[in-house]
Order: sequence, then structure tokens, then C-alpha cells
Amino acid sequence: MRRDFGSKTWMYPMPVLIVGTYDEEGRADAMTAAWGGIHNDDTVCLCISRGHKTMGNLQARKALTISFATIGMLAACDYVGMVSANDVPDKVAAAGFTVTRSRFVDAPVINELPMCMECRLVELKDENLVARIVNVCADESVLGPDGLVDYKKLAPVAYDPVRHLYVALGDVAGKAFDDGRLLMRD
Amino acid sequence: MRRDFGSKTWMYPMPVLIVGTYDEEGRADAMTAAWGGIHNDDTVCLCISRGHKTMGNLQARKALTISFATIGMLAACDYVGMVSANDVPDKVAAAGFTVTRSRFVDAPVINELPMCMECRLVELKDENLVARIVNVCADESVLGPDGLVDYKKLAPVAYDPVRHLYVALGDVAGKAFDDGRLLMRD
Repeated sequence: MRRDFGSKTWMYPMPVLIVGTYDEEGRADAMTAAWGGIHNDDTVCLCISRGHKTMGNLQARKALTISFATIGMLAACDYVGMVSANDVPDKVAAAGFTVTRSRFVDAPVINELPMCMECRLVELKDENLVARIVNVCADESVLGPDGLVDYKKLAPVAYDPVRHLYVALGDVAGKAFDDGRLLMRD
Repeated sequence: MRRDFGSKTWMYPMPVLIVGTYDEEGRADAMTAAWGGIHNDDTVCLCISRGHKTMGNLQARKALTISFATIGMLAACDYVGMVSANDVPDKVAAAGFTVTRSRFVDAPVINELPMCMECRLVELKDENLVARIVNVCADESVLGPDGLVDYKKLAPVAYDPVRHLYVALGDVAGKAFDDGRLLMRD
């Protein structure tokens, strides 16, 4: 028996994305977003509500970084989603974040979040943006012996939109483009 | 030290979405998608490549369901991402799925996947769609005693885009709009 909940923005899992931008004075800002995902071959899409300082920064700089929240930095990642840089100008520092300018786009890489996408704004329509992924970088500390990202080392979190929880990723449950072979007929 | 990987569609976590549609003859189809997310207050966005039968179905029916892949149905969820309904017309049955017509939109609800969004197509531009979330339904078996979805009962999976793995959700790591209080100054 199914229950109907009406129109809800409930998806499982949802990401916890930390959006990094520079303002016109070159000051770094960061904010949390859960509404977004991969848009196409080399683009990402995000929803940023109008009131955020990030919105003005995007219009000015046409660039952003998108870091993935990690268990180790969860309080900081939550904090930058709770306060506005309009109210707390040193928000990034108050969160305990430091930044390095991206080598690829005009946006700050958050040093304490080991993996991010470096993106150039392609389109901003109302609250929805599409951005080109110019580069993805990851700290060596989250790479496996094969040089690729190991999600267990990265320890990203998912957002539970129903209960407003951050949820760790668990064990490997299956292999994509492989588990389905069981059901294939020759 | 950071390593650069170039332009990659790597996000953590990514969802594993099973898109349900009817074709013009009323036959249900399902396919797997990982590129998409919440778009705005009551909309979702998805990327569906052109070759998929789903694309024609969307144009014909202007509706879809988006179910969340679960650990219990992983082989079926992977299978519908591996074969095309253009080649296997009874793909949904071959996956072991049965469907019930949505009460809200002209699309099939997959009975074996306990939670889905029922959506009406708003915009389809090349491979990218935006759809209105008309209703979210969930089977009683995945609800907690409070009547809300319990992600541990739902057991959805995330997609690891780097290693092409399905990953279970683990334990609660924190509370959103709460953990950040630690860093607040009065």
C-alpha cells in the first residue's frame, strides 16, 4: 500500500554541495546547496535562491567551485548553509575554511574539502544555473593506490531531504553495468 | 597536494534514478539515469540521451515517474540501464518489474521500487528535461512509525561515477541546519 505525500523535493540520495565564489572585492564566499546534479557531458546544474550573496558573485565572476561535503568537515559545511555572507562577511574563515584560487576558473577552491569541480558559468536563468565543468581536482589523500578517487577515503555525505539528516555512504552494494547481466538472456 | 582530472562528471553522491514512461501503445518502459537532481521548489531535472526509447515516450506522453533504485532490486535497476526497449520490447517484465498506472500523471509506477516521484514534463530541450513533481509516493513498508520515509528501510543506493559502483547509504552522520550551530557566534 502506497502513501501519497504531494509535491515534495524528495530524492534519494541528494548531494551536499559547497559552492565557492569570489565577490567583486575578491573575497571568497561559500554556501551549501542540495538542489542540483550533473546536467550533461561536461556541465552541472544548480539551484541557488535569490537572496544568497553567491548569486551576485556568480553574476560578477561567472565562475564557481562545487566541493563535496565530507564527514570530517560537516559542522563547517552545515554552517555555511546557515549563515549569509551578507550578515557575516568573514563567513568562510568563521567556518574554518581556507581557500586557494583555482588554476582554471575565477573561483576559490576550499582547501579543507578534498574534492571539487571547478566550473565556468554557462547560463543563469532565475535561480537555476548551468556551469561547464572545466576541471575536477582531488587531494592525494583521498585517492586509492590506482590514483583514482576512493569514496571511502573521501567520505562524502548525502542529504536526507525528509528528515534533514546528513548520511554517510556505506558499503559497496553492486557494480553498475554488470549486476544487470544476471537478467540478460542470450 | 591536489591532482587534476580534467572535465569529469564526477559528483558525490549521485542518485540512481529509474525513469518510468509509457510509449504510444501504452507499454511501460523503464531506464536508469544518474544525471539529474532537484531543479527548484517543485521541479526536477534529468538528462536522457537521445537514443533512448524514453525520449520518444516523453514527447508522446509528457509524463514520467522517477523511482529510486534500492539494494533489494539492484540487478533489475542495473538491467534497465543496460538494455534498450528498442531491442527488448518486454524489458520491464524481463527486469522483474510490474507497474501500476500513476493516479496523478500518465506514467507507470514501478511496484517493486517503493518510492517515486510522479512528474509532468515541463520542458524538454535537447537531452535535458525539467518536470513538475506532482506527487511523491512511498510504500508503507519504508515508512517509520511517524509516517515519514525512513531511508534505512528504503535502502536507496548512490552511484559512484569514478568506479561505476552502487553504494549503500550508511549511518546518520549529522543533522542539517543544526551541526553548524557549533560555529555560530552570539
